[in-house]
Amino acid sequence: MLLALDYGGTKLTAAIATPEGAGREWRARRSIPSPPGADAGYDQSTMIALADELLAGDRPAAVGVSFGGPVNAAAGLVLLSHHVPGWENISLRDQLQSYFGVPVSMDNDANCGALGEWRFGAGRAGTWQAVETRHVASLLYVTVSTGVGGGWILDGRIYRGADSMAGEIGHTVVDPNGPICICGRRGCVEALAAGPNLARRARERLTAEPARGKILRELVSGNLEAVTAERVARAAEAGDELAQAILSEAARALGHGLGTAITLMNPQRVILGGGVTKSGERYWQELREAARANTLPGMTVDIVPAELGDDGPLWGAVALAERVG
Amino acid sequence: MLLALDYGGTKLTAAIATPEGAGREWRARRSIPSPPGADAGYDQSTMIALADELLAGDRPAAVGVSFGGPVNAAAGLVLLSHHVPGWENISLRDQLQSYFGVPVSMDNDANCGALGEWRFGAGRAGTWQAVETRHVASLLYVTVSTGVGGGWILDGRIYRGADSMAGEIGHTVVDPNGPICICGRRGCVEALAAGPNLARRARERLTAEPARGKILRELVSGNLEAVTAERVARAAEAGDELAQAILSEAARALGHGLGTAITLMNPQRVILGGGVTKSGERYWQELREAARANTLPGMTVDIVPAELGDDGPLWGAVALAERVG
Repeated sequence: MLLALDYGGTKLTAAIATPEGAGREWRARRSIPSPPGADAGYDQSTMIALADELLAGDRPAAVGVSFGGPVNAAAGLVLLSHHVPGWENISLRDQLQSYFGVPVSMDNDANCGALGEWRFGAGRAGTWQAVETRHVASLLYVTVSTGVGGGWILDGRIYRGADSMAGEIGHTVVDPNGPICICGRRGCVEALAAGPNLARRARERLTAEPARGKILRELVSGNLEAVTAERVARAAEAGDELAQAILSEAARALGHGLGTAITLMNPQRVILGGGVTKSGERYWQELREAARANTLPGMTVDIVPAELGDDGPLWGAVALAERVG
Repeated sequence: MLLALDYGGTKLTAAIATPEGAGREWRARRSIPSPPGADAGYDQSTMIALADELLAGDRPAAVGVSFGGPVNAAAGLVLLSHHVPGWENISLRDQLQSYFGVPVSMDNDANCGALGEWRFGAGRAGTWQAVETRHVASLLYVTVSTGVGGGWILDGRIYRGADSMAGEIGHTVVDPNGPICICGRRGCVEALAAGPNLARRARERLTAEPARGKILRELVSGNLEAVTAERVARAAEAGDELAQAILSEAARALGHGLGTAITLMNPQRVILGGGVTKSGERYWQELREAARANTLPGMTVDIVPAELGDDGPLWGAVALAERVG
């Protein structure tokens, strides 16, 4: 029995899986929203209570942890939370090891998502039955939602890099003259393809081109503040040409960034998760085309959707626990 | 005693090193120019004769091979030579194994250069004496001469990717509106930073700006066809402002491409070899600045010159032989 904990940006989740994650079913799983208010932090006592409730007195063989922010996985340290203060240089692994009395392994959410997909999701090369022996040798996992994060699995292991910062595809530059990114540079993948950025671009174009975007305007009842990436995608599916153009721009930026990553690393598979990647077949076609156009002939790669949805990092935590348990 | 063979674009080299490459000295080493004429191929019999001469009847413990073109390292196959025909799908490893009767390991020249630097050159983290235990955990090796090639060492091993094509930093796009590259896209690192491309750019600007580039013009006695990357670098060192501007452009393009690779992979060290990287302190300063400007704060990386010069791939072949011998 393995305990998986996910300290996410908006919620805390604990779950229990059997070793091998049999059938990819949780034995038990519970989420609660992160406490509101910046000073509440992730509230470790809430997470512990959640875990204890699921465990009901049993002891897990090991604990795996996905954390929504930068960590030093080797040292078991949380370096920082992007969401709440009070998590600077916290020995989360030691805390949990003391409490549960079993081995604990942790990583950031992008790396956990990558490992989860590799082990239990779209990184399997064969069928579920063949999971033990057949996974792709290398994959890049990218999640596109409020930001763009990424993680590498190379030869079956998380590749973290010198400062545990590998995988920052969100901050590779696609268009040196593009919009300013949160990182200070221009035209990063994130600045062009993340949900809020896509929505902002839609608002700009709706404002600048009053005759276009009829379907999208109707969808938000004329309130541009209500434009989201998801609504742009819905309008695009319904035939709105402006929405299609905006979505295409974001898809092509992401695809171009993926192409660069593929050219550098020649991964066997790229797995895309996060809400924005649910933007329909046209979105996928455009991003695949852009990726292909930006790689070398001879490089074979599949670009496929994530299979585990929001549970990817949690399944990655299970995979971490398997290895340490 | 290990035998290293380098099938290079312009010459064949055989060398003998002791295990551990003691003192980084060759016990014997001999090069001959590749036979002229496209149909001559690499002339395997010349290479064998070269090796036999050095071995003088002794048998090596193992053979390592660096090949100047795409290979399938796992299968021991040469896929293609960029320089000469007749090398499509050749089982070079089996041929050499049969002939010498010992294990043979091979890879392409960029990967061999990366491994050679990691094992014997600028990839050592400590001093020569500490070589056994101390190397950087991850490095990107890039060679900038007539083209731009690259290889990755991750966790002490060559990372090859799904199609043995990882490391193609030369064909990552820096400027989508830049000059056409040999690969068909625009503004690749190679199209902006490789020697012949740098020289072409110099010729264009000398033609377009007749009042500038006095020192460079003198250096080639007014014959623009004689402009090379090396002469641009010499003119830049001597104070030619046009040459400096051209060199700066190439250095910044390379640095930008390195920055993207660093953002994606967070390597501990980047090692640069090849003739163009001998273009002086200003060139290095510009490329380091551009790389830094295109990575995230918090990513630590050294960008340093290769230590083994043209012998990098040959030393990499020694490292391959060590592992298989």
